[in-house]
Amino acid sequence: MQNIRTDLAVEAHELSRKQAKDAAEIDGVISEVEKMGDITVTRVEITNENGSEKLGKAKGTYVTIDAPDLKYSLETYEQTCVIIAEEIRNLAKINNDTLTLVVGLGNREITPDALGSSVVSKLLVTHHIKQQRDSDILGDNISGVCALAPGVLGTTGIETADIIKAVSEKVKPHLIIAVDALAAASVERVSNTIQISDAGIQPGAGVGNNREGLNEETTGTKVIAIGVPTVIDAATISKVKIPDEMTPLMVTTNDIDLVIERAAKTVANGINLALHHGITLRDVESYIG
Amino acid sequence: MQNIRTDLAVEAHELSRKQAKDAAEIDGVISEVEKMGDITVTRVEITNENGSEKLGKAKGTYVTIDAPDLKYSLETYEQTCVIIAEEIRNLAKINNDTLTLVVGLGNREITPDALGSSVVSKLLVTHHIKQQRDSDILGDNISGVCALAPGVLGTTGIETADIIKAVSEKVKPHLIIAVDALAAASVERVSNTIQISDAGIQPGAGVGNNREGLNEETTGTKVIAIGVPTVIDAATISKVKIPDEMTPLMVTTNDIDLVIERAAKTVANGINLALHHGITLRDVESYIG
Amino acid sequence: MQNIRTDLAVEAHELSRKQAKDAAEIDGVISEVEKMGDITVTRVEITNENGSEKLGKAKGTYVTIDAPDLKYSLETYEQTCVIIAEEIRNLAKINNDTLTLVVGLGNREITPDALGSSVVSKLLVTHHIKQQRDSDILGDNISGVCALAPGVLGTTGIETADIIKAVSEKVKPHLIIAVDALAAASVERVSNTIQISDAGIQPGAGVGNNREGLNEETTGTKVIAIGVPTVIDAATISKVKIPDEMTPLMVTTNDIDLVIERAAKTVANGINLALHHGITLRDVESYIG
Amino acid sequence: MQNIRTDLAVEAHELSRKQAKDAAEIDGVISEVEKMGDITVTRVEITNENGSEKLGKAKGTYVTIDAPDLKYSLETYEQTCVIIAEEIRNLAKINNDTLTLVVGLGNREITPDALGSSVVSKLLVTHHIKQQRDSDILGDNISGVCALAPGVLGTTGIETADIIKAVSEKVKPHLIIAVDALAAASVERVSNTIQISDAGIQPGAGVGNNREGLNEETTGTKVIAIGVPTVIDAATISKVKIPDEMTPLMVTTNDIDLVIERAAKTVANGINLALHHGITLRDVESYIG
Repeated sequence: MQNIRTDLAVEAHELSRKQAKDAAEIDGVISEVEKMGDITVTRVEITNENGSEKLGKAKGTYVTIDAPDLKYSLETYEQTCVIIAEEIRNLAKINNDTLTLVVGLGNREITPDALGSSVVSKLLVTHHIKQQRDSDILGDNISGVCALAPGVLGTTGIETADIIKAVSEKVKPHLIIAVDALAAASVERVSNTIQISDAGIQPGAGVGNNREGLNEETTGTKVIAIGVPTVIDAATISKVKIPDEMTPLMVTTNDIDLVIERAAKTVANGINLALHHGITLRDVESYIG
Repeated sequence: MQNIRTDLAVEAHELSRKQAKDAAEIDGVISEVEKMGDITVTRVEITNENGSEKLGKAKGTYVTIDAPDLKYSLETYEQTCVIIAEEIRNLAKINNDTLTLVVGLGNREITPDALGSSVVSKLLVTHHIKQQRDSDILGDNISGVCALAPGVLGTTGIETADIIKAVSEKVKPHLIIAVDALAAASVERVSNTIQISDAGIQPGAGVGNNREGLNEETTGTKVIAIGVPTVIDAATISKVKIPDEMTPLMVTTNDIDLVIERAAKTVANGINLALHHGITLRDVESYIG
Repeated sequence: MQNIRTDLAVEAHELSRKQAKDAAEIDGVISEVEKMGDITVTRVEITNENGSEKLGKAKGTYVTIDAPDLKYSLETYEQTCVIIAEEIRNLAKINNDTLTLVVGLGNREITPDALGSSVVSKLLVTHHIKQQRDSDILGDNISGVCALAPGVLGTTGIETADIIKAVSEKVKPHLIIAVDALAAASVERVSNTIQISDAGIQPGAGVGNNREGLNEETTGTKVIAIGVPTVIDAATISKVKIPDEMTPLMVTTNDIDLVIERAAKTVANGINLALHHGITLRDVESYIG
Repeated sequence: MQNIRTDLAVEAHELSRKQAKDAAEIDGVISEVEKMGDITVTRVEITNENGSEKLGKAKGTYVTIDAPDLKYSLETYEQTCVIIAEEIRNLAKINNDTLTLVVGLGNREITPDALGSSVVSKLLVTHHIKQQRDSDILGDNISGVCALAPGVLGTTGIETADIIKAVSEKVKPHLIIAVDALAAASVERVSNTIQISDAGIQPGAGVGNNREGLNEETTGTKVIAIGVPTVIDAATISKVKIPDEMTPLMVTTNDIDLVIERAAKTVANGINLALHHGITLRDVESYIG
């Protein structure tokens, strides 16, 4: 995979098979595809070290939801929210007593890296209400949710993983969901694809470039990572050598602001539906914000 | 002080003296005024329980910098940055080895409450660079700075003081500087006044409305609070009773976005000069951002 | 109406009746109220000079839609969009061949004044597509729409009415719809009320403070004005005299950014439904933006 | 120049010479280079049809200011403002009675295309003040300036050139300055380079993609175009074929928001100094905004 950078397991799998001369199978990687109308759900499971090494990804399950019409169709948007909710609930048990900490990674000042903080701003946060005596107002099937968009190392001076671990030790959630912008290899996938994984976030992955991993091992808590590719690394497609000392270049589309807004809304409402089984998408959208 | 809400000790002192029929002195409050051109620096010291009760503020030193020309004059801006730096250094020893955690309080989505997060985005953050082996590039008289804008309870679900304490326990700073938007009683003070205090931030103070205090007692670390009034509480000036169940009203000016930008730049560069004795205002402004 | 400033005819009518000791009627003003669930539609018609003088508004029809649940309920939002569309179509004939110029007044840099430009950014603009040969792609019942958010005198140096007249002379629309933020007298109406009028926009009305009127007389084109109150003038509620030389104060709520977003979406989609009879609210919302 | 897209005459000249096997000269193109410390000023004059065809640019003068340190150094920023002012005054006579209309082209919603509207928001606009009787407050050597950021065809439905011509006919300026974001061929030039030209803006140039030209011929008024490259067209550097039906891809850096802010400030203050000979850079920066 020389020079081709992708955070998507499904793309790493395709590239790996190509390099292996279209080998039908790679040992340690199981893949299945499900079509749901225009939406394609691919589940890649990396089961051993060989698979992990070949794909350059940690062991675990990677669910990829490809929804090419996400930016044109409300049906696709609504269906995608529901699929995200189901896939999260496949990866983690969630009930009334679950406390989830959602962390939005990335730099909110940089549009294609702002996905994580944008998702966090659209969540139905309930932890502080559930802690009050009169929290019955929330009704059944509303789990505890708290959220944080800590920023990036360059603006905080603190490793993002350290901030999350510190807050996690204080709040003691049962589940961490970490949302980040990703880089894809394929132009077609930018902002239409959602990857959900229980393998955590690896060092150096994502635009946010966290240097330490965020996973069950490092945090002591189950971690689900959700990512949306918002850029292609320029090195992936460039025919000219880009000077190393330069600010990294990113390839992006000119409607990226709007596209990220919809992708963030999709991921946020997928998470809202997963964590609060007692509400509908329409309930969530009734409240401004 | 019925119905008049102010976060400024200098205003609380004036109001308290008025109520005491212009008593020359209130026991437990020492006040001195220094004129520096168009800028007035007032130091109010609350030395005992009586003073604390009368002014409704914790014991400690409150320095108020009134700079009416802040939004029209670069001279005033530059002079104010230097005064802020000096006052911070009066309240805390800072040298090359000091590590400071600056926290920007408030809700970045609400313009008059965004002061804290805006200040944080303009800081010269150095902690991660100082931790690297080749940190000599920073030169002398650059202390360690890390920064966080954690958001507010309503959007995180976590008490802001808890987030700060958690991160502080991990990072172990020698000093915490907490920046927040304040409410003033006087229209003339909005956005022209900077209050610097070693008394910490009290529960319920500020627009951000933190429910637990942030001070040396609660954090185990010296806390300097810096605030700028950006609103007047509508209840302070209203002749009609405002329904309790309403979203709180704020009185603000229509140039508030620009005014907060300059106030944030002033506070941020005051902090930058205080913590990095080796650089000039011009150095700081050379870097974009 | 000393000291009480309102841009809403319905409030001016109430105040005028109060001053006339609750006179049942004011000569030259006809008013009717219609309840539609939680939404109240009031139609005030000013029919002669006496009515115009007493209310301080130009002759014409003023429809006020009060939708107190606008920010909590999608049903209210959807119903309000439909009512806006109907009221626009009551005031102006619109068919496939109509060309409408929508102008968003106000200063986009100042949150409570940004309503007009925000509405413009959410419109289904079609004029340039209809002018192309293959414009059949738009289908039936899509009228021609162009839009402009010209800014305010202080940032352009040009009277806003002059910019609109210049562009109108070039584009030659059959209808101008002018959208602006308004000031209300009542706290409860902020951001929940939409006023639609065929009387145009008067000099000095609105936050944007256009100095020349915008109406059929000054533009040669029918003008429908749509406004939403986003502020209360501080002078209206203040018990203290505010110095004249000060930047004008506005009373606003701390969720104003989100509230204006929903109000702008409601007005924009009301206009979209009025001008494009061939589409549904769901169609409009399918496209990002 | 197959597949290589650039809006910079200086790059077109380099490419054209390369294609002509490094011919020393191209008929109809005169070029001179001036070094001023770290800043390089290149003047390319296209004098005949051959030059125009070879470079794919209209006849006229193109001044390119390359300031590689623009984003790190206040000295470079200040020097660049002064050079821009001088070059504008070389291309157009400006005195106390001159009225200039500055138009900011491009889409303010798309970061790399927002340069034009950002510049407009930083101008010292004076036309409305000069028209008042008491305009002596402005003092000498302040010329008349009005400004407009009309938006793009896709959001207005109106050809941008038509809006500008309409307003220009109403306001009757002596000079139009049109500011736009450009595409460069070279990564190193992004956001460090300012091009100033009296050749106007050509159809299809710039990110904003105006379909009709904006020049002395089409407007009846002298037009100076000022542009800063903020993107590289992805087709220029891509080794893979990008599907035609896709949203155009742009290559950009991840600090583009900050970089455009400084470039916009540089261009705006260059224009301010050119048009208002009576003020200094420090005067301009004293006012907030």
